[in-house]
Amino acid sequence: MSSLDTLKARLLEVDDLSNAAALLRWDQTTYMPPEGAPARGRQLATLSRLAHELFTNAETGRLLDAAAKETASLPFDADDASLVRVTRRNWEQSVKMPTALVAEFQEHSALSYQAWTEARPKNDFAAVRPLLEKTLELSRRTADCFPGYQHIADPLIDFSDYGMKASSVKQLFSELRAKLVPIVRAITSRPVADESCIRQHAPEADQLGFGVEVIRRFGYDFARGRQDKTHHPFMTKFSLGDIRITTRVREDEITDALFSTLHECGHALYELGIDRAYEGTPLANGTSSGVHESQSRLWENLVGRSRGFWEFFYPRLQQVFAKQLQGVPLDAFYKAVNRVERSLIRTDADEVTYNLHVMLRFDLELDLLEGKVAVKDLARVWRERFEADFGIPVPDDKNGVLQDVHWYGGPIGGAFQGYTLGNILSAQFFATAVKAHPGIPGEVKKGEFGTLHGWLRDNIYKHGAKFTAPELIQRVTGGPLTIGPYLDYLWGKYQPLYGLREEERLGAGVA
Amino acid sequence: MSSLDTLKARLLEVDDLSNAAALLRWDQTTYMPPEGAPARGRQLATLSRLAHELFTNAETGRLLDAAAKETASLPFDADDASLVRVTRRNWEQSVKMPTALVAEFQEHSALSYQAWTEARPKNDFAAVRPLLEKTLELSRRTADCFPGYQHIADPLIDFSDYGMKASSVKQLFSELRAKLVPIVRAITSRPVADESCIRQHAPEADQLGFGVEVIRRFGYDFARGRQDKTHHPFMTKFSLGDIRITTRVREDEITDALFSTLHECGHALYELGIDRAYEGTPLANGTSSGVHESQSRLWENLVGRSRGFWEFFYPRLQQVFAKQLQGVPLDAFYKAVNRVERSLIRTDADEVTYNLHVMLRFDLELDLLEGKVAVKDLARVWRERFEADFGIPVPDDKNGVLQDVHWYGGPIGGAFQGYTLGNILSAQFFATAVKAHPGIPGEVKKGEFGTLHGWLRDNIYKHGAKFTAPELIQRVTGGPLTIGPYLDYLWGKYQPLYGLREEERLGAGVA
Repeated sequence: MSSLDTLKARLLEVDDLSNAAALLRWDQTTYMPPEGAPARGRQLATLSRLAHELFTNAETGRLLDAAAKETASLPFDADDASLVRVTRRNWEQSVKMPTALVAEFQEHSALSYQAWTEARPKNDFAAVRPLLEKTLELSRRTADCFPGYQHIADPLIDFSDYGMKASSVKQLFSELRAKLVPIVRAITSRPVADESCIRQHAPEADQLGFGVEVIRRFGYDFARGRQDKTHHPFMTKFSLGDIRITTRVREDEITDALFSTLHECGHALYELGIDRAYEGTPLANGTSSGVHESQSRLWENLVGRSRGFWEFFYPRLQQVFAKQLQGVPLDAFYKAVNRVERSLIRTDADEVTYNLHVMLRFDLELDLLEGKVAVKDLARVWRERFEADFGIPVPDDKNGVLQDVHWYGGPIGGAFQGYTLGNILSAQFFATAVKAHPGIPGEVKKGEFGTLHGWLRDNIYKHGAKFTAPELIQRVTGGPLTIGPYLDYLWGKYQPLYGLREEERLGAGVA
Repeated sequence: MSSLDTLKARLLEVDDLSNAAALLRWDQTTYMPPEGAPARGRQLATLSRLAHELFTNAETGRLLDAAAKETASLPFDADDASLVRVTRRNWEQSVKMPTALVAEFQEHSALSYQAWTEARPKNDFAAVRPLLEKTLELSRRTADCFPGYQHIADPLIDFSDYGMKASSVKQLFSELRAKLVPIVRAITSRPVADESCIRQHAPEADQLGFGVEVIRRFGYDFARGRQDKTHHPFMTKFSLGDIRITTRVREDEITDALFSTLHECGHALYELGIDRAYEGTPLANGTSSGVHESQSRLWENLVGRSRGFWEFFYPRLQQVFAKQLQGVPLDAFYKAVNRVERSLIRTDADEVTYNLHVMLRFDLELDLLEGKVAVKDLARVWRERFEADFGIPVPDDKNGVLQDVHWYGGPIGGAFQGYTLGNILSAQFFATAVKAHPGIPGEVKKGEFGTLHGWLRDNIYKHGAKFTAPELIQRVTGGPLTIGPYLDYLWGKYQPLYGLREEERLGAGVA
């Protein structure tokens, strides 16, 4: 048996433990009764500890060295060479963290998540504050395992978007903000689109049924997945044969569950498309948070909020919600699902203002980690900054600092930048796909997604984590990440929708 | 830190791994998409292997020795003394089995279960036959880890009903059969009770809702549990804060889901009642399969099929199924849910014939293990023996050898005797409870179960696995397991229902 094979067997065992932990988390967020939480935290700590011990021990390092020699003559993009390269990168990251810290963080996150599920509906930030303080401390201790960073957030950003730093994200966000703000201003100077047609009662089962119908057409494979309800939708994977999504439903809006379903389906299509030969290895994952979000946002927005998509699906939706949508023309509906307005909730935000929500959170993460903002002041600071950025008051914490699960179920730092990276990349990838296959928009109008899905699978999905995000973007688009296609996409869509004038695109400057 | 404390910390870790494995199994049987099965099997193998390694290694043995010294002066029933005693017994059992065999069996069972879920509706015994052959081989190899047994089934029976042997079960079953057969003959010489009132369409949601209403009154705690649907109902536990049940629903019978819900609730009440100080130790379990089934059968039958129970609940059921039960008198309904007839399916069988189903399976387990019956002939032998015992033909394998999950999701051997031990004990325990609290039947008529539940908790549930089944039975009832109370209960209930004559109880002899 080669060292590579021995390494693979060991990785498979690590994978089994990690996937068992993922199932424990999925269960906690979907079905677990409340009193299961303390033991669940302990179980997650034990599984994470064992997985971390097994992955980081010296024998794994020796196997990696030996496997590197065995694969030295292979080309860069050969599966086995990539496996060794990517595993070594993960290993070098993991060995720097003490197992006890990893386990402690897992257990704490499980308890903190549980507290958040109760605190959010009660609008009770005080109940989670001590837990959030602990989360911040654990996040800092995690970052401090990587001495020599420029910014304390850098190691945490590295976990989700390898190669990015606080400084590079800040610069990118600053450029993007400068271009976005004029568009937001221009749009919000127009009358708000009428959304009354979608703001109607819509039974849960009908909403879920329609969403399932759409994602089946996208190519979501229910033999390898399922959808359940949860507090905060997510995608998770227990093997390449079991990739699940979750959603949530408010019955006061026809499309409430839909876009969350499409979003998570985009994540799932990415993972479902990974080469199944990578099963049980670090290659069997999306390569970064940004690339992952590019797929959720591509299917949710560039496809799911496009006029072509609704040319096909709107008549079907009118059948499902006959009473509600009778006599509502396609264009009115299309405008409603693409209304742009400054609003309170990130996950409900339109494509244009969405990134401002992300930037707010990203800046707060940096300030928290740097100690510029204390957790005890976070709810207040959130409200102040939100009002400054969006010009609308935050009525309560459940529509403010309690709205997102991220800080309550994982580290502070690295949690949010991926959403905006994903928005940018979704347009960059989509433009590349359409350039390669100009027929894609026409197919979307017919409810056909095979060419688009196939291109994404062949160019992005199947590679899993073989290439880093920068490597992948270069391979797929021929250049680095760039905001041009995203801004062109937004302008191309919203200029006609809101009758914007070309000079408004440039605006008066940076907000 | 004492050795006992170190031992407890280690047991907690074993418990975390075992509970994670239990959740993986629960998920497989409730929600997992079909293509998740291969990885799930592997994950279960890994978790079982790690749990077994950790539990059986020499350090656990040393800790047990040291902890035994530390607890030597404690009385037999002290928690810590019991913990050491019970853990040592489990440890001595576990160390005899190679870890690789344990892991192989877990993985095989996961795959075999998955195949069974597909084979049963298709009536396709051939599809599971090779898997069942492997199960038999693994069961034999497991038994052979315990050389010196009288019968090859003995070690397997020991896992579930410690202290019982094939010979003692056979003798008990033979005595019971001699007393049961005359009663079955007497009843089946009468006209079959009219069950048309319950054989009516009943929507799933209504059935489930009513069942939940009942088990809330029994004392099932939804903050520490939940109910989901599955192929074959079961109870499972992930901690003392998370004890779940599953059920299944056929909409062609009003009470189809109900009795399965009550049955699993009985199992759950047992585990929910365990002293929470035992969390994470081998004491936090039911003590044997037989005692566990005594609780499922007690709540399902001695309570849930009693006339007093329905005096309270029937008016409520009539509200839920107003159209179906309008004008059906309580007595007609009571007779229908207690109809006795020779039928095909064990889980649907009445209280009187039920044990004959168990005995058939128990005998087949012995014959399979002994090599007297080959798996290739099993479907045929099942049909022949069933027809001989029950006098009705088996139309197909899904109503025959494919009906029960047990052999397809676990070992052959030790799987079934617990049901009949449970029937016997349910009556023995119930009679003891009523002797201590003669008001219990009167409370049941008022939908009150607190006295019964409290007595069971204080005398049985809270002890968990502290006492072996024989020890517990002696403590609770003042004597050993005995079939008298069970036969008295059956006669007392069915004699008036079917107008039996006293001399019929003795019958003409053994069938």
